Amino acid sequence: MSFAQLVSNHAQTLAHAVKANATREYFAHWQESPSKKFYGETAADEGETAFKALLNMKFMNLSHTNGATDFQWHGEEESPYGFPLGVTYPQVPVETLITNAQAAQKQWQRLAPAERASVLIQTLEDAAKQFFTIAHATMHTSGQGFGMSFQASGAHSFDRALEAIAIGYSEQAQFVPEVTWKKPAGGGEVTVQKRFHVVPKGVGLVIGCSTFPIWNTLPGLYASLVTGNPVIVKPHPKAVLPIAIVVASIQATLKGLGLDANLVQLAADSSANPLSLVLAEHPAVNVIDFTGGAFGNVLEDVARKHGKSVFTEKAGVNGVIVESAQNLDAVLDNIAWTLTLYSGQMCTTSQNFFVNKNGVRDEATGTIVPLDEITKRLAAKIDALITNPKMGGGVAGGIQSEATHKRVQEARDVAAKSAILVRDSAPVPQAGFENARTASPLVVQTSAAQSDIYEHEWFGPVSFIIPTDGFEHSLQLLLRSLKAKGALTTLVYTTNAAERDAAEEAIIFEGKAPVAFNYVGGVYVNQSSAFSDFHGAGANPAGNASFADASFVTSRFNVIGAREVA
Amino acid sequence: MSFAQLVSNHAQTLAHAVKANATREYFAHWQESPSKKFYGETAADEGETAFKALLNMKFMNLSHTNGATDFQWHGEEESPYGFPLGVTYPQVPVETLITNAQAAQKQWQRLAPAERASVLIQTLEDAAKQFFTIAHATMHTSGQGFGMSFQASGAHSFDRALEAIAIGYSEQAQFVPEVTWKKPAGGGEVTVQKRFHVVPKGVGLVIGCSTFPIWNTLPGLYASLVTGNPVIVKPHPKAVLPIAIVVASIQATLKGLGLDANLVQLAADSSANPLSLVLAEHPAVNVIDFTGGAFGNVLEDVARKHGKSVFTEKAGVNGVIVESAQNLDAVLDNIAWTLTLYSGQMCTTSQNFFVNKNGVRDEATGTIVPLDEITKRLAAKIDALITNPKMGGGVAGGIQSEATHKRVQEARDVAAKSAILVRDSAPVPQAGFENARTASPLVVQTSAAQSDIYEHEWFGPVSFIIPTDGFEHSLQLLLRSLKAKGALTTLVYTTNAAERDAAEEAIIFEGKAPVAFNYVGGVYVNQSSAFSDFHGAGANPAGNASFADASFVTSRFNVIGAREVA
Repeated sequence: MSFAQLVSNHAQTLAHAVKANATREYFAHWQESPSKKFYGETAADEGETAFKALLNMKFMNLSHTNGATDFQWHGEEESPYGFPLGVTYPQVPVETLITNAQAAQKQWQRLAPAERASVLIQTLEDAAKQFFTIAHATMHTSGQGFGMSFQASGAHSFDRALEAIAIGYSEQAQFVPEVTWKKPAGGGEVTVQKRFHVVPKGVGLVIGCSTFPIWNTLPGLYASLVTGNPVIVKPHPKAVLPIAIVVASIQATLKGLGLDANLVQLAADSSANPLSLVLAEHPAVNVIDFTGGAFGNVLEDVARKHGKSVFTEKAGVNGVIVESAQNLDAVLDNIAWTLTLYSGQMCTTSQNFFVNKNGVRDEATGTIVPLDEITKRLAAKIDALITNPKMGGGVAGGIQSEATHKRVQEARDVAAKSAILVRDSAPVPQAGFENARTASPLVVQTSAAQSDIYEHEWFGPVSFIIPTDGFEHSLQLLLRSLKAKGALTTLVYTTNAAERDAAEEAIIFEGKAPVAFNYVGGVYVNQSSAFSDFHGAGANPAGNASFADASFVTSRFNVIGAREVA
Repeated sequence: MSFAQLVSNHAQTLAHAVKANATREYFAHWQESPSKKFYGETAADEGETAFKALLNMKFMNLSHTNGATDFQWHGEEESPYGFPLGVTYPQVPVETLITNAQAAQKQWQRLAPAERASVLIQTLEDAAKQFFTIAHATMHTSGQGFGMSFQASGAHSFDRALEAIAIGYSEQAQFVPEVTWKKPAGGGEVTVQKRFHVVPKGVGLVIGCSTFPIWNTLPGLYASLVTGNPVIVKPHPKAVLPIAIVVASIQATLKGLGLDANLVQLAADSSANPLSLVLAEHPAVNVIDFTGGAFGNVLEDVARKHGKSVFTEKAGVNGVIVESAQNLDAVLDNIAWTLTLYSGQMCTTSQNFFVNKNGVRDEATGTIVPLDEITKRLAAKIDALITNPKMGGGVAGGIQSEATHKRVQEARDVAAKSAILVRDSAPVPQAGFENARTASPLVVQTSAAQSDIYEHEWFGPVSFIIPTDGFEHSLQLLLRSLKAKGALTTLVYTTNAAERDAAEEAIIFEGKAPVAFNYVGGVYVNQSSAFSDFHGAGANPAGNASFADASFVTSRFNVIGAREVA
């Protein structure tokens, strides 16, 4: 297929995505529901079969192995649902990856932005055919429930990738590629022929995380690609398979289009011999995307020292103010769901709840509900959700890492020693997976003074109720936390417009974090929607990147001009 | 005047600028010629009178002095044409400047991008009324000839400022400020009201240089302002007056519009007690623009360490390849002008000429002109230009600093010791200014092996002829220099299309520098045109910024969202 044909094929998709980025209206290119209506009768079964066929094998589908097997092979993935995956991946030497990437860049950087965008949309369309396989691989590495795996690693990720393609395309295409420049001069004119080249920064490195191996990888991957950079994907060694499937699919599409498949490569490493820093420090690597914890600070330092572009999402502490509500029952339903979803292992999950110690006004009943009653009702809501046999296991999923599991016990110990245990964590039954590692939400009540307990990230199913003197005190504590630790999300419940406006001004312009107000019903603060919600503010200590604002793409390339007097 | 009225008044100017940025076609909002036809019969005289009235006085027009005189006052400017200016400026304490800036930010950051852009265009329109005063102030600080001062600190700077406003506006306005988001959900839909706020990074600092006190200051100043940041302008202590006039004018416009005049402030310092690092390291300063030399590396480190955005233009080594020409005479005319203009004190002036040692093919005569003849003819061209009584003094101007003047002697010494002096430097008569510090271009011929001599910046009227084995060797030497030292400009003379293409590919994608081909006639490599030529690649060691690509504005703000369930 010619590039012109490809550009034509995907012109409408690209135009829709560009428009959605601008209008921020609801838009989704892929269906988030695994319904047979959208994906056909056989897709679900085929996906599961394909996933199972990958287990306990060498992963042979990557182009840079070129069919060779004389690499070291390694794999250490274990399903949080209780079994080892047994998949091994080639340990391709770093210099081979770099050389391959630089070779692939030569051709790729000379394509027009619309050509690159169209090739990349094609890679997404092709990989989307494996949504079910990817979902199983995600479930059995991240521990997400199947439904969430399907959405988060499928439609939601792919829409984020399309979003990055669209803004990357827009930013490159805003300048003409060439122009005949004529300046009036003394009755005549001078003429200069000008050509403007998009010059990529160099090899991109995308370092993935274990909880969202696709969702947090695709935006950086596609942002670097659309702006002309080759990319090496370095997944978390405990969550390789989902992105390995996607990388192999992208490579196959590139190869089918006559392009160098090594434009995207997988750098599988091991916990014993991690490659993140080796790759990040390599002089050829000029763009780094990272999702994870404090190691992001190390990478930011490396990038700064060597003038590389770096995009991070690190640890943060997400806060909620609960002051007053139209309907407190709906509020508690919403919070219970947020805390239970994937057992709090989302970077966007709320952790700290600043609640007026004098109670919360509930407009639905016209009463002020005391703090003790609120904590009891919240605990009961979580209990009901977890024990709902149709929902509990699927919503909570498994605990990705042993470290997160241990953290629950640590929080329990802290509560026993110096705080109040509002709700204890317990195993969550997972039908068919008796050895699953699980933990339902643990909720602790501290005092406002115990910031040594609550003002750092407790990644996983741990949250804190913090009684305050009221709205202003709550806002003050939230702002202090935002400035010190940052956040991916904040949420405020108030029926008072003045309080809402004050919170919006302070949280956004001082705390530099996003804010949600009065979330109830089918929207949750830990979910963000591609083309509409910017994910990560890029402005507070929780990370410097935002999916996908303009700066998420503009520092991945330069525009450099050639001028010629004919 | 209301903001709505202001937006309406300047809508067309903004639209033209936005369009010119996209099409890169010739566009200029201000007239570069000081002709009475454009500026009226009396403007020139009034400007000179206004300039003279400022001499030997306290500069009292700055808002942050609030009419107070109880500051320390200091000034150390001396005209390169041979007299002290005698102007003193208030030494406002850093904490006062920061406090003022942060106070001004509160209001400014809540204006709409179109409102900010329109206010800023108004500040330019008002300041443009002082083009002649600014030109005299520029001439007698930088040493530029009057004609160049008028253009560089007038129309050309102001067009660059308008360019920055336009792209800053475009980048902010590409997302809607609010939207009602409706997602289909189970037969009905969920609705979220979303508001997207442009959040400035914080206080901007613009550190000016002594040779282009306006041209290199306005882009960063206006890029920071249009994206919501207040700005502190820290001029070079030897070139304060031009930008002081502009800052005072901006403040007067802001005040007239009912805005906080301290949005832009002047931080005049002294050579003895420089403020650059103190300001750059201040925690409230989050955006830094810098033009100058190696000190830019220090600022980049400060910025990196503290997560600030930094935009630099530092030292570079600009190279030229001379291989073949349609008309060698026109080529040598062009080069002679480039080297003589402002005595080589432009960051864009060519320094190193890689010339085929076997001679240069001249299509006009059908001969291959030997290297020795080329160097002789170039020297003669420079002589003719310098001694032309109507042009020489005005084109060459004065030497801004004693350090540059000494560098000429240093180059002369190097030539005497280990190279060939092609053309010696000499004083340039400046009518009416007998004590002017001047120096015509000095040209030295080295060998290709003497990179220890030529492969670093000799800022000022010093250039090198470097005989090479031919085109490939020349390109190889140029690329080595680009990678090691960077460049603002490169220039290639060849009549061979294959050589042109090879040079364009290598210089832009490997050397990451702009390139010009076969410049003759009325265009010069050391001139760049707002809205069309990106100034600085932002991709090589000569600096990380480009006037004005998207990344020049996008890392000065974040977009942070508020979401509300109604």
